[in-house]
Parts: sequence; structure tokens; C-alpha cells
Amino acid sequence: MISAEDYINSLKDGRVVYYRGRKVTDVVDHHVLKVPVDHASSIYKLQSDSDYKEITCYNDNNLGVTSSFFKIPRNTEDLMRRHELIYETTRLGRGQFNIIQAIGTDAIFALMYVSRKVDEKYHTNYYENVINFYNNAAKNDLGLAVAQTDVKGDRSLRPSEQKDPDMYLHITKRDKNGIYVSGAKAHTTQSIAANELIVLPTRSMNSSDKDYAVSFAIPANAKGITMFARPMKEVETVENDTLSVIGRKNMEVETVTVFDNVFIPNNRIFLNGEYDFAGLLAMMFPTFHRFTALSYRAALADFLIGTGKLLAEYNGVSDKSNIKRNLSVLIEYKENLRANAIAAAYKCNYDNISGIAIPNIIYTNVGKLFANQNYTDAIKNIVDIAGGMVATMPSYEDFENPDEKDILLKYLTGRDRNETINRIKLFQTLREFISSLGSLYLAGMIHAEGSIEASILELTRSYDYSNSIALGEYSAGIRDKL
Amino acid sequence: MISAEDYINSLKDGRVVYYRGRKVTDVVDHHVLKVPVDHASSIYKLQSDSDYKEITCYNDNNLGVTSSFFKIPRNTEDLMRRHELIYETTRLGRGQFNIIQAIGTDAIFALMYVSRKVDEKYHTNYYENVINFYNNAAKNDLGLAVAQTDVKGDRSLRPSEQKDPDMYLHITKRDKNGIYVSGAKAHTTQSIAANELIVLPTRSMNSSDKDYAVSFAIPANAKGITMFARPMKEVETVENDTLSVIGRKNMEVETVTVFDNVFIPNNRIFLNGEYDFAGLLAMMFPTFHRFTALSYRAALADFLIGTGKLLAEYNGVSDKSNIKRNLSVLIEYKENLRANAIAAAYKCNYDNISGIAIPNIIYTNVGKLFANQNYTDAIKNIVDIAGGMVATMPSYEDFENPDEKDILLKYLTGRDRNETINRIKLFQTLREFISSLGSLYLAGMIHAEGSIEASILELTRSYDYSNSIALGEYSAGIRDKL
Amino acid sequence: MISAEDYINSLKDGRVVYYRGRKVTDVVDHHVLKVPVDHASSIYKLQSDSDYKEITCYNDNNLGVTSSFFKIPRNTEDLMRRHELIYETTRLGRGQFNIIQAIGTDAIFALMYVSRKVDEKYHTNYYENVINFYNNAAKNDLGLAVAQTDVKGDRSLRPSEQKDPDMYLHITKRDKNGIYVSGAKAHTTQSIAANELIVLPTRSMNSSDKDYAVSFAIPANAKGITMFARPMKEVETVENDTLSVIGRKNMEVETVTVFDNVFIPNNRIFLNGEYDFAGLLAMMFPTFHRFTALSYRAALADFLIGTGKLLAEYNGVSDKSNIKRNLSVLIEYKENLRANAIAAAYKCNYDNISGIAIPNIIYTNVGKLFANQNYTDAIKNIVDIAGGMVATMPSYEDFENPDEKDILLKYLTGRDRNETINRIKLFQTLREFISSLGSLYLAGMIHAEGSIEASILELTRSYDYSNSIALGEYSAGIRDKL
Amino acid sequence: MISAEDYINSLKDGRVVYYRGRKVTDVVDHHVLKVPVDHASSIYKLQSDSDYKEITCYNDNNLGVTSSFFKIPRNTEDLMRRHELIYETTRLGRGQFNIIQAIGTDAIFALMYVSRKVDEKYHTNYYENVINFYNNAAKNDLGLAVAQTDVKGDRSLRPSEQKDPDMYLHITKRDKNGIYVSGAKAHTTQSIAANELIVLPTRSMNSSDKDYAVSFAIPANAKGITMFARPMKEVETVENDTLSVIGRKNMEVETVTVFDNVFIPNNRIFLNGEYDFAGLLAMMFPTFHRFTALSYRAALADFLIGTGKLLAEYNGVSDKSNIKRNLSVLIEYKENLRANAIAAAYKCNYDNISGIAIPNIIYTNVGKLFANQNYTDAIKNIVDIAGGMVATMPSYEDFENPDEKDILLKYLTGRDRNETINRIKLFQTLREFISSLGSLYLAGMIHAEGSIEASILELTRSYDYSNSIALGEYSAGIRDKL
Repeated sequence: MISAEDYINSLKDGRVVYYRGRKVTDVVDHHVLKVPVDHASSIYKLQSDSDYKEITCYNDNNLGVTSSFFKIPRNTEDLMRRHELIYETTRLGRGQFNIIQAIGTDAIFALMYVSRKVDEKYHTNYYENVINFYNNAAKNDLGLAVAQTDVKGDRSLRPSEQKDPDMYLHITKRDKNGIYVSGAKAHTTQSIAANELIVLPTRSMNSSDKDYAVSFAIPANAKGITMFARPMKEVETVENDTLSVIGRKNMEVETVTVFDNVFIPNNRIFLNGEYDFAGLLAMMFPTFHRFTALSYRAALADFLIGTGKLLAEYNGVSDKSNIKRNLSVLIEYKENLRANAIAAAYKCNYDNISGIAIPNIIYTNVGKLFANQNYTDAIKNIVDIAGGMVATMPSYEDFENPDEKDILLKYLTGRDRNETINRIKLFQTLREFISSLGSLYLAGMIHAEGSIEASILELTRSYDYSNSIALGEYSAGIRDKL
Repeated sequence: MISAEDYINSLKDGRVVYYRGRKVTDVVDHHVLKVPVDHASSIYKLQSDSDYKEITCYNDNNLGVTSSFFKIPRNTEDLMRRHELIYETTRLGRGQFNIIQAIGTDAIFALMYVSRKVDEKYHTNYYENVINFYNNAAKNDLGLAVAQTDVKGDRSLRPSEQKDPDMYLHITKRDKNGIYVSGAKAHTTQSIAANELIVLPTRSMNSSDKDYAVSFAIPANAKGITMFARPMKEVETVENDTLSVIGRKNMEVETVTVFDNVFIPNNRIFLNGEYDFAGLLAMMFPTFHRFTALSYRAALADFLIGTGKLLAEYNGVSDKSNIKRNLSVLIEYKENLRANAIAAAYKCNYDNISGIAIPNIIYTNVGKLFANQNYTDAIKNIVDIAGGMVATMPSYEDFENPDEKDILLKYLTGRDRNETINRIKLFQTLREFISSLGSLYLAGMIHAEGSIEASILELTRSYDYSNSIALGEYSAGIRDKL
Repeated sequence: MISAEDYINSLKDGRVVYYRGRKVTDVVDHHVLKVPVDHASSIYKLQSDSDYKEITCYNDNNLGVTSSFFKIPRNTEDLMRRHELIYETTRLGRGQFNIIQAIGTDAIFALMYVSRKVDEKYHTNYYENVINFYNNAAKNDLGLAVAQTDVKGDRSLRPSEQKDPDMYLHITKRDKNGIYVSGAKAHTTQSIAANELIVLPTRSMNSSDKDYAVSFAIPANAKGITMFARPMKEVETVENDTLSVIGRKNMEVETVTVFDNVFIPNNRIFLNGEYDFAGLLAMMFPTFHRFTALSYRAALADFLIGTGKLLAEYNGVSDKSNIKRNLSVLIEYKENLRANAIAAAYKCNYDNISGIAIPNIIYTNVGKLFANQNYTDAIKNIVDIAGGMVATMPSYEDFENPDEKDILLKYLTGRDRNETINRIKLFQTLREFISSLGSLYLAGMIHAEGSIEASILELTRSYDYSNSIALGEYSAGIRDKL
Repeated sequence: MISAEDYINSLKDGRVVYYRGRKVTDVVDHHVLKVPVDHASSIYKLQSDSDYKEITCYNDNNLGVTSSFFKIPRNTEDLMRRHELIYETTRLGRGQFNIIQAIGTDAIFALMYVSRKVDEKYHTNYYENVINFYNNAAKNDLGLAVAQTDVKGDRSLRPSEQKDPDMYLHITKRDKNGIYVSGAKAHTTQSIAANELIVLPTRSMNSSDKDYAVSFAIPANAKGITMFARPMKEVETVENDTLSVIGRKNMEVETVTVFDNVFIPNNRIFLNGEYDFAGLLAMMFPTFHRFTALSYRAALADFLIGTGKLLAEYNGVSDKSNIKRNLSVLIEYKENLRANAIAAAYKCNYDNISGIAIPNIIYTNVGKLFANQNYTDAIKNIVDIAGGMVATMPSYEDFENPDEKDILLKYLTGRDRNETINRIKLFQTLREFISSLGSLYLAGMIHAEGSIEASILELTRSYDYSNSIALGEYSAGIRDKL
């Protein structure tokens, strides 16, 4: 276990990051990127906070005390504890997920499961590589990012069919010490704040895609890696804004992460051309990560419920039938996600070989689809509660000018003058949420952890129809017994 | 435990039932009503069927071997077993719920919980009455119906405000031996097949509604009780139909159940004017019963999945993107219900006083609302898969006439001639499901166990907003710590 | 113009119809099929009813007074009059469409348009055939059915790829006098009540499907045609029911219509192997017919609004916010259909060559998709208003038994005792609507006039994106001027 | 008619505007507020642009050539031309509405209609005031804003019941020359760019609200008026962004507009205590303005279609079934709005007294509700097409740095390298649309021109149920004739 300070210092490692057209000297001191770094570091702070130690730390027989994120789930209870860990740390992040150890361990658990199967078939030693990587990461309390989604080029073509072979990350050369890879991964969340990047294939492959079936872990400052960050307007534009907290403190950042002939030593490789396992790995990681997603999204939805309930009260409309309907939509949004997370834990599948409890793939996908398909409806309902002022309210500076302050407080009063300043803060926060944070949330809630169409394919493929079919046949008189 | 035959004979008790304008001499021999009786009796058959004994029977320390429905839930596992019991018996009923011991025990569990609280405040002895009733019912393996929803008259008025005082069931007279009640309950499912009727108040009451705050159990053949059954067209019109099985075998029936100064002896009374507990009882019963509803509706949805998947295959379209989307809606419908049932069991509330595990009220309501609000969408999707033939296909007699049979089989072939007869049976079954069974299912899936609006009120009232509000305030900078 | 009596007599022509496994001697006297015949005949009654003559009759320069259905639309006003004709005759049919001259003229208008184009390319004389057929039909006030949807077999295969070549209707032989066709058409509405069947191809074809590119008109009693009617349970089961009117009077029937080497004389052929026009014809007919569909579906929705509003009043809940929301959904359903019908008429495309005003294809499809996708939502909302009694109410016979009548009227009273009998009639009618009529309506509202997927393909293919793309590019700074 | 330059100069009139805590010396020179001023001025530019004169100018018999916005609608064609005027000017504004003469004339038309009725009952001379104001505004080509929505305080209380009487704008004093008013109006769009403000009551009133029933017009620089603008982050944060055009050029701004004892001379008063007409005026203005809203929102939706179609093409997925479904949702969104606009024009109500064609209130509300309820669904669908890159793409500066440019262009290529830069521009534009413009659009599309609940109340109240009820009764056998 390390301190937040140690963690932050560990990022001063010469990594190559660009932000708004400029090479960043040091992410931890950068006026914008320090925000996602600080957000990540809060996980480390909680690990040494007596109020939160119990939830964030775990005493492992072999490794000693580690971050709870590294606790390998063995049963329902472990998965439920992981759910609570992610749910609570997201709430402590003001509804913003803290991915820095969550996504990496999701990937590691998937790799533990898959590497055993690859080793069994091909007599490789990937499982050992995974375990060594895991032990090191857990012991040193590392921050981890996962790079999975390739930039993809023409989406109607397979990896090996692209005009430019680099549209999917692939092996360009092999030597006795390792492999060299080129390509680019999109949407790599918190790569700039991670010690290690775990790379996974983005889809199933066939024999022609052999060189694209590759998985490994590599330090974020490895030679040949360049990260291009998205512009964090939600941070840039609120830094002096005393009314808005989320943007100043709790945002994460994504990069386009480019690999230019990056060398991967043999002991860091988890898949190397075994194309028939690319699909399994591409599917197992989301199974873990969608369980994580249900957990953090429920916490985000909790922010919507609280904000909606408060605004309904402040507006004096909380007893209206239509407002109750709005609130029930927000509650249903959150609790359907939680229900699926609980069901995924309760109906988990224990894998004898790796000793891992895998969240139920049906519930992770059903919950995840619900999250994707209904997020904009949740937004519609909270905006319906809030009213137009969420968009048209004057700025925080207007509330600081003595010539304006009193008149604005008078006229922005809702049910009660004592609540006015809080009402204004909620409007301001919700405004940020649906504007400067808006594209991130919309894209995230619809696309993160896989698109809607991908989840529908996964769900309809994974579903065991046999009992349902038996019931259909029995009910139609096609068979006599169930 | 009794046999199916004993159960059926027990219904020959002089009960007063009308069907299609005629007084029914004997429900068990009635050409239509014997179907719901037989459906109910299948529960008893399963209790002596070696394949199903384990799930349908339970060995109680005090009562000996009883029906599993009478097992009082003490923890998550008990609730999960109850969920499976209802889910599996519904599947064995070709997707049709078998209510005969499920609803009654839901009511008993709610009464156990509430009666302790009434006794504590008013020094009454209702809990003893409930326990005695329960012991007797369990020992004798009784069939039970629950009459809760009053006919209500003008829905804008309270019980005591109605022009006709009988619009809600109420106490008309009290004497030292008991009370007399009048009124009518709507939608009493399987009353004609029950040994006992359990009566519950339909809503919260205030002091002016005192005489309406009444709960009791009474034999279905008690003097003054008349049951008016709905017409079972789904049974009448399919009796010779060799292609349709559900209607001939698995339907339940509802009655308008009229009480005309029915005498209730003191030891059968569970609430008698304690109006401040009417609301609690009216809410606790649905909490148990909505958990039951999630369980049987998931089984019904399983019928839709199986039928949809088979028709998609037979039509040769199961690999189309739009058909997968249809199937995913059916899967999501079922599994969201199951997820909420699991979450309700996992996050149950154990009541120390009565020793009962109460299904989590948030998940029972979230799941129930999902079931109500999305049922028609499930129907849209299965009809979209099936195609128009589900409506326009010729009748079963046409497939029995040698002049027609071959030509129809030829032209109703889908993907494969060997599947034609099964395809026809599925069309026929689905046609019944959305026509002769249609009103029942639509009304049931939207209104049974409480209307949508009632559930929204319940959910938004029951929800503990405190953590959500804390998060809203913390995110908006209104408070400094979560 | 002919009388209803003449029309009915014209159907005694030896046509071959099967109903429930029996050959029907005479459709007009058949205890069930006379209902759809009588429903059709009401169009003829209106033509001689002084109250409705103005709307149902039209004075043509060449043909004299004919049915308004035969009025060729030349402009917006003609289309609006056609919309009103269909809307009003549907209302007069208690919300049930009367297809007998509507669909046939939709097909004729499409054939007029397409045959000119075929003639122009192939020097055929189909337009003359169409005009002659039209003149004869209009002068003799014929009833017409359209047979388009083939039974299709394996939907993943083209017509010519099917194992059984008869899965799509096709030409089996050609001689100098005409052609011979075999195959079967599904869902042929009111074929049993039509004088003539118009046959259209169901989809676009390529050169391998040449023999499937065929269109013609033929009398319904032609040798080789056999019609297999669906069972009309909604008629069979309500014949004595004094509380339900729709099923007894206003239903239409569909058949599987089999063609066994039926001879089509040359002057009745409209397409004969010109496969490159099959798609155009398959698309133009729905354009006219979807305009018709918007018109009749709006009238059906009007039935839902009226029934919903009355039940809300009778239940005493019409001023509740949630009930207003229910009603607004029903109003939105109807008026969005009407709005698209009006827009389709207003933005019609006048074809110079045939002189026909074609309803706008975008609005016919947008309105049609709205009708398909939202019908089950309308049903959900009306059932939500009605309450469970719509399913569980006793039968009409119970209201005729003096022992039961008063007690039932007492307890089924809503807001006011004087309204009770009307409340019961509405429940009864709505029960029929969602049960015995349910499969027909669900399948019809989702599949009739083409499936949802088919309409999405049509809409996204027909849409002229050029202006939208210009705006997208202009807004993104890709182009400087709009 | 005046030039864009004259218009801009006319705004240098000493008006009191605050922006971000500072008093604005001159809106036309303000680094941010000049953007909404320039956007407004583009209407004037089009009036002298030979390509657009025909649509933007109108030759009135009395007033000579005026802006087309001032053309009083007399019939369907006038309304359709107004629809096209608003639709096209919105497209020319890159999908952003240009309200500067549209909303004011909507208010004037409503005032013309209502003032005649008030005069008739109360022998006032408001109509003359309205006409004089109209003539002056039309002749001088004025920019107009409408202030209707009061800040409202506690929404559960009427205007006269509020603790602070200023929560709704009201008359504080009357003298022989006019009246004095105080209060604040929220969401006043483009007030800072308007010459005149038209003030309307926000709701129906009763006798206790007499002093709140007030309507008038007043120059924007009148003594006592202070405007507090919302912060225009979408302008501030894109000023140097070469990839984003909308925010730099086409945004409008809203203010909280405070009236502190503002004097209104008699000839500018349109309502003064006639509380029984407040509701009519509050309803008639939205009827015109919702027609306007359907027109501009259709143009906004056109931007979504174009952007979605282009991105689908660039991503290489335009032929996927799920992407077609996404596109069809966007098309349906736009064309349902257009269809309702057309129907509202076609079924307009001509008022004999004022000589004005009023858009049909049912279609304006049905279309408006559709726009409100489905906007977030449109957003979901376009984000689903775009993919996550819409959120995570690097900034425009990264494409200007030679070290980064080539590598980013390589990896952000979709289907074709030649399209890469355009693909990036579309991502960038859509990102702005759902982030910096997001709160404005969400709040606007859900709340502008009245909330969802308000529209449901309006629709269910305005609907003429008589024909629907007749049909319900006829179908249920309650009445014998329709």
C-alpha cells in the first residue's frame, strides 16, 4: 500500500502526453490534468482514512494488506463487497467513477480465467505472466488503465482487411525477447494517471487476424507510447467557479493511445497470436467490467435522485403526481442497475480452474443494456423536474457582485428564501452535468463497456434458451412434459 | 398434506357461485369451472410427485411435512426457494401462475407481521388468531384466496364518503361472538377453488373509515358469500381444440365476491376498527405478493422467450439484427424481473418480532413497475417476430379435414417442412395468448398486485432518500462531507 | 352503383371457401361469414343513405355516379376527401375499417402509375388493362380484395431459392391467351366478400425471380382459387351477447388464398415477368395503402379516446394527473396519425404521366411507423384507465338473471348509479377489443401494410438526405454555404 | 426595412445588462454578447440578400415592404409560408433558431386576437394599442423579445399567495398616464438583442390575482429594466476553435429580466387587470409560438439527420440494420414535427373578428409534446451512431501541432482517409452540441414553449371529445347511431 503522495510522484516518469496541442511536461503539475490525477489519488487517500479503510483495504494471506480492488472474487459475498466498494467510492467521487484500480483488476480477473485455457491448449505460460503481473501490481498498489477499443477504421472490415494495417493494434515483429506492437487504442480512460496499461483485443478474430490477437501489460511510460488527451472543458471552464464542485475535483480523462513499435518483453505477454481465444478474452473482460459499470452507474444515478428530489422540494412541487413519476423513473433507473448487479453476484459462476467467481453474464448484460438504453430517459426526467432555470440561470460571478447578488437571490427563490443559495448550487451543478460534462456522460452511458448493439448480440448469443424452448413447446402441445 | 382428489372433494361444500347467469351446482363438475379447479389441483399432484416433492414439500419442525408454500421465510435462502417454487410451478402450469397457496401465504406472512404490531398497541390478540389460522391451513393443506380490492364506487371519494356505504367492505354490526360484514371485493382470483377467503383492507384509512378497517378469514362457503365469476371464454372456446393446450388446462378464474352481512367469529378476526393499521396491512401484503408476482411473471416471460425463439427459427429469421433486438427485449423483460426478485430476497428485511424475512420493498416495487410498464412492449416484440399469421391462420379443424390438410401444411411451411406442424401449434398458442387470454393478461400484467400509479406512489414514498440527498448536496458543494 | 342487396347476391358465385374445416356453401348465408359480408355491405348502404351520399358517392365525368372510393386523386383536396371517406366509414363501422373498396382502389392507383412506366419501357399494354379493369369495377361498384403477401417459406431465401417453388406465387405456364399461376397469398382481407382479387408481387425481384414478377386481377370464384378463412372467434362467441356490438356486426375476415394453376387471361395481366418493376409496384401500393391505413387507424384510435374518456369519467378519475397523461397518449396516438395523413396529402407528388396525386411517401411511412410502434402503448394506457374490471367482470347473462342483476348493478356502480349500465357496456366492449379481437388488432396494427422493419428500410431508403447533409456539413464548417 | 448595421446600432441605447458579474457597456461590442447580436442580425442580412429576399420580405398593402415575420397569417398558405420562413432561417442559422422577429410576432398575433375580445367585454382600447405597436414594429423592422414565464417562487402557490408579491410580475401603481410594474421574468430569449420587450401573463388568473393580469410592450432600455444574462460557455470556450462553427456564430442568449417599478404608458398597455382574459392570452401565445417551435425544431432535427447520416457513412456502418433504425428515429423525429406543423396550418381556425388564421391548437400541442418527449431519444440515437469518439477525441489544437497532426489524422480515419478531416469536424460539432450547448438544448427542447405537464393539461382540456365519445358509445351499444 502506498500513500497518495507516493502514487502522484510515481507518475513523474517521462510519459508522453499531449494536451491541447502541447506536450505535457508533467501530468501531476499540469493545470488541467492534475484534476484527473487528484481524482485518482483519492482512492489512495481513502486507503489510509480510518473511516474507509475497512472497505478499501483487504488483508490477503499471501500479499498482506492490499487495496480491496485486488481482492480476487471467490463467491457471491466477494462480488457484493466489490459492488459496494465501487458504489461507495463513486459516491465519494461525487457520482464520478474512480477507475484507477477497478478496470485493471477487471482485466486481470478476465486474464486469469482465459490464460489458463490458452495455456492448457497451447502449453504457453501466460497464466504465470498474469499472476506475476497481478502480484506486483497488488503489492505496489499500482494504478492501472485498460486499452481495449481499437480505432477500427472502416467498421465494415475485419482487422486484417483494413487498408491501413494499423487500424487495429497488432504485432509488427517478434524476437526471442518479446514482440513489437503498433496501432492505436481509443477511449483509454485515465491512462495518463496509470502506472501500467493493460492491452486487450477488441473482438473475436480468425486465422487471418492472427497478429491482431495480442494482449499484454506495459508501463505507461514505455518507449513508443504517446497519449493524446481529450480537451477537459469541464475542468478548464469551472476552475474559479465556486458554485460547481464536480468539474473542479472529480473528472477523469480519456486518451487516444498510440503504440509505435512498442516492445513487449516475453514475461509481459498474455496472448500472442492465439486468435481463437481473442473472442473469449474480448468477452470475459466486459463481463467483469460491466459488473463494475452497474456498480458505478448506480452511484451516478444516486446523484440524479438526490439532485432531483432536492430540486422538487425547493421548487415546491414534490407532491405533484407528474413529479413523483419523474422521481420514480430516476429510482427505477438506479435500482434496476443495482438489482442486476446483485443478481449477477448471487448467480455468479465459479470457475474451478482459476478459482474465480465470474459475475453472471446474463445479468451483467441485462443491467448494462438497461443502463445504456434508459440513460437519456433519466436525463429527460431530471430536466423535467428542474425546469428551464437549469439552463438560463446567471453565472456564479453574478452572485458575487454586490450590485446583483440581492436581486438575484430574491428572484431565484423557490419555496423558501433560506434554501435559495442551495437551489442555485444545484442548478449550477446540474447545468455542468448536462453541458460541460454532457458529451462525456452521453457517450459514456451509451457506449462505455460496449455499444448497445454489441450487448444485444452478446445477450442473445449467451442466453441459454433450452428451458425457455422447452416451455414454449410444452405450452404449445409440442411436447408432453416440461 | 392431502391428495388432489381430497382437495377437489373439499370444494363440494355448497358454496354459492354464479357463472354466465346460472347458479353453479358444483364447481368441480362444472364444464368450465372445473378447468381452474383442475389447474389448482395440480399443486397437490406435484406434492405427491417424486420428481417435484423436494421443491413442493417442506418438513416443518412443528407441523410436519407441509406444502412449501407455507414455509415461513426466515432469510434470503428461504425467499429464494419461494421464488423458485413459484417460478417452477408457473412453468409447470404452461406459464400460468398457480395462485392457490401462494397468495394466501403472502397474506398470512403480512398478517403475522402486522398483527404483532396491532396487538402491541391495542392489546388485542390478532397474532394468535393469525397463527391458529396458519397452523390449521398448513396442516390441512388448504387452498386459499385473498380478497382485497374493493369495488370502490366513485374513486375520488374515501370509503366513508361514498353515497352507498357498501362500496368498500365494512362492519355492519358487532356482537360478543364476532362481527358482521357487507360489501364486495373485485378480482378475487380462484375464490371458487379456495377453501378459505382471507379478506384485507384495500387502502389506508382514517378515523372516519373505522368500520372499513377490517381483516379476517372465512370459509368460502360461509353464509352470505356469493361469487360471480367472469366468463372464461378462453376455456369455452378451445375445449375441442387439439392445437391449444393452455386454455384447456391452465386457466384461473376471478370473481366479484359479495359479502351480505357475513358473520365472522372472533377467532377469525385479524383487524377490527384499528384504522391506523389498515394502511400498513394494505402495504405489507403487496410487498410479499409483488415478490410472488415477480416470480410467476418471470416464468410467463420465459414462455414468451421460448415461443419467440422457436418462431424466429421456424421463420428462418433468427440471425437478423432486428429479430435479435426483439428477442433481447423478451430476455430483458424476464431477467429484469428475476434480478429484482433476487435483489428483493438478497436485501430482505428481517423482522425480529415476527421472525419473518420481508422481501425488500424497493426491489419488489421496482420489479413490479417494470413488469407493468413493459408488458405491452414484450407483446409488441413477440408479435413482431411471429408475423401476421399469428392472427390469420386457419383453425385447427382445417388441419383435420383431409381435403385441406396437405395444402395448408404445404403453404404454412417456414424454414423446414418437418417443423410445419410445430410452427402451426406455436401460432395457435400465441393466438390464444393474445386473444382469448388477452384481456386477462393485459389487465393482469398492468393492474394485478396494484396499479402503476399505486406502485409509483408506494415507491416514491418508501424510498429512503437520505443518502441520495447527501450525495446531491455533496456534489453541489452544499455540504463538505458525504 | 348497386344496392347492398345486389352486392350480397353477387357473392353467391360458387367461390370455394373453407371455414373451420368445412367447405362453405354460401358465404352470405354462413352463420359466421355473413358478418364480414354484412360489414362490407354497409358501404353500399351508405351510398344510398341520404345522410352519407355526399361523402360516399362521386359524379365522374366519364363514369357517372360512382363510389367515392373510385375517385382518382388528382391533388391535395382529393386525397383529403379520401382520408375523410375512410376515416368516417371506419367510425361508422364502430372503429373497424371497411376495406372492400378502399384497398382495391389503392392497388388500382398504384397499378395506373406503374403500368405506364412498364409500357413505356417494354411496349406492353398493361395500362390499358388497368384502365379497363378500373372502369368495369367502378361502373359495377365492385367489391375488391388485394392479395400481396406471399406465404414466403424460409424468409432467408429469395423466391427462386425456395425448396418449394410455390412459396411465392408464380407463373407456371404461359400460352397465347394468358398465363397460369400457382402459389398462396397470406392475410387476404375480405377476399370472401370481394368480387375480384387483385394480385401484386410482395417484394423486389431480380432476373432469377422473373416468373415471380406477376400482377393481375381475377374474379374470386375463378377455377383453382381456394380460400381458407381464419376462425372468427370474436363473431362466434358474441352472437348472443347483448352487451357487445362490434363482434356481432363489424368484423372482417382474412384468408390464406391458394392459387392452383389459375388461368389469367391476357387482358387481366398487369405485370408478366418484368422483374425490374416488381419492386416499384411492391412499394407504390403500400404508399397508397399506408395513407389509407393512417386514415382508418385514426378512426380506430378515436374509439380508444372515446372509450377511455368515458371510463375515466365513470370511474370518477378524469381529473387525476396520471389519467390525463393516459388520455393524452391516446390523443397523441390518433392525432399524430392524422397529422401525417394530412401532411401526406398536402405534400403529395403529382405524377404528370398518370395524372395521379401520390401521397407523400415520407409522411405515409412516418405515420405508419408511428402507428405500428405505439399501438401497444395506446392499449397499455386505455387498460390503465379502465382498471382490472375490464377483465374480471361477470358475463352479460349475469345481468339478465333477476337473482343477480340488482346486486351486480349495485356493486359495479362507479361515479353514479345512472351510469352503471353504460360503464358495464364499455367494459364489455373493451374486453372484447383486447381479447377476442386482440390477436387481430395486435397483428394488424404491427404487421398490416408491412412490418416495422420493412417500413424502416423503406423510410431510410426513400429519404432525400441531400438537404440534411448540406446542413450537417454547413454546421460543421465542412462547407461555407448552405 | 433596415440594414443589419442599422439594427446593430439601434441596440446601443443604454440598456442595462449584466454578464458574468459585470455591467455590460455595450452589448454589440461585448466579446461574448456580440455573438447573439450577430446571430440576430443575420435576419436583417437575409432581407437584403437577393437569394433570400423572396422568403424574408413581404409587400404589405398598407405598410409597404416589411419583414415576412410581420405578415399576418390569414389562411393555410400564409401559415405554411411562415413555417417555411422559420424552418429555412433556422437552417441558415446552422440549426439554431433565430427568434428576433418570430416570437414577437407570435405574441402580436395572439394579442390581436385577445385584445378584440377584451375590448368587446370591457370597452377598452387595447386592440388599437396592439395595432399601433404592430405598425410601428413592422415599419421599423424592430427586433422583439417576449417575456412571459415569471420566476414563480413556490410553484404550489398562486401569484397572489406568494410570500414575496414580486414572484410574479404585477402592477404596483396606477396613474392617469399609465401603470408601474415590478417582478422578474425568466428565460427571456434575446432580450439583450431586442428593441422592444413584449410582456405577457404566464397563466390563468382569478380575481385575487387582478394586479398580475397585465400585458404590455416596452423598449428594452426603459428605466427600471435590468437583464441578467446566462453565461455563454458555448461561446466563450470555442472562440478560437477552428473546428466548431455553431458556438462561434449562432447562439442566442437568455436573461432573467427584472422590472423595478417600470412605467408603462397607457398606449403601450394590452391588459390591465382584466384577469378573466389572462388565461386566454397565456394560452393563445403558445398556440402561435408552438407552431413556430415545430418549425424551428424540425430544422434542428434536420441537423441531426445530416450529421447522423454523414457519420454513419464515414464510420462505414450506414447499411447496418441497427444504424438504419437509429436514422429512422431521427427522421421520424423531424418529420412528425413537420407533419404536425402542416396539419396545424391545414386545419387552422380563421377568426372572423381579428382576421387571423390560428394554427390548430391540437396539432400544435401534439407536435410540441412529441418534440419534448422524444428529444432525448433522438440524442441517444445520434450518439449511438457516432460512437465514443464524439466524447474522447483530442482538441482542435492537436490537429494544428505538426508533431501530432499526421498521427492523429491517420488514426482517426474511418472509411476513407479523404474524409478524415470532415469526420473530425462532425465529431467536434456534435461534441459541442451535446456538451457546451447541451444544457440549453435539453432544457429548451423539454421546457421551452411550456413544460410537458402544461402541454398535457392544455391538450386534454382543449380536445373536443364529443365525436370520440359518440363513437365510444356507439361501439358499446350505448347509442344506436353515431
